[in-house]
Amino acid sequence: MKRPFVHPVTEDLKLESVLYALADPVRLEIVRRLVNGDCPLNCSSAAPAHLAKSTQSHHFQILREAGLICSERRGTEVVNSLRLNEIEQKFPGVVGAILAAAKPLKCPDEEPRNG
Amino acid sequence: MKRPFVHPVTEDLKLESVLYALADPVRLEIVRRLVNGDCPLNCSSAAPAHLAKSTQSHHFQILREAGLICSERRGTEVVNSLRLNEIEQKFPGVVGAILAAAKPLKCPDEEPRNG
Repeated sequence: MKRPFVHPVTEDLKLESVLYALADPVRLEIVRRLVNGDCPLNCSSAAPAHLAKSTQSHHFQILREAGLICSERRGTEVVNSLRLNEIEQKFPGVVGAILAAAKPLKCPDEEPRNG
Repeated sequence: MKRPFVHPVTEDLKLESVLYALADPVRLEIVRRLVNGDCPLNCSSAAPAHLAKSTQSHHFQILREAGLICSERRGTEVVNSLRLNEIEQKFPGVVGAILAAAKPLKCPDEEPRNG
């Protein structure tokens, strides 16, 4: 039995944690994809493909602990959705302005992986 | 002769560095005071008073390297001003939204210091 994910409640969201979570090109890219995807995405779809699994999990954990995303197990996969409404309510305009200023991450995503 | 301060040019400003610089309550408070002060402030006036000098210098360095502030030596003191126009031009709305969402830092500022 895997441990359930822990998500902070809206009252406990901290601006510093949100900014720290977004102060990384990979995590910013994950949030960008979740916004553009407009629906929950599994970790592989939301994260740049060149990441090691453990690195990927670490990034999702930081986003989750900052309250930016909600993760949910569905069978063997984990799907992630943004908590944009709550974040917007607590820190109006912050994430929107950051996403508008963020450039898509250049990464070797589309290359076929061996093995 | 002290080393001159190094400031990144506008083209080299990075969103991630700006977010990282602001993802700390003390640095956010320094920026808040510089905005509210509306004029260049020396380090002691801009930083919460309970900080050790070396910690204070470290925070100003991170803000400077992110391009958020410009530091200048005037005699024996260093005065700091915000580079808000450049930051706003490069990342519209980001710092404004963050400052609007930021709460003033509670710190033992006004207490008399011994020694």
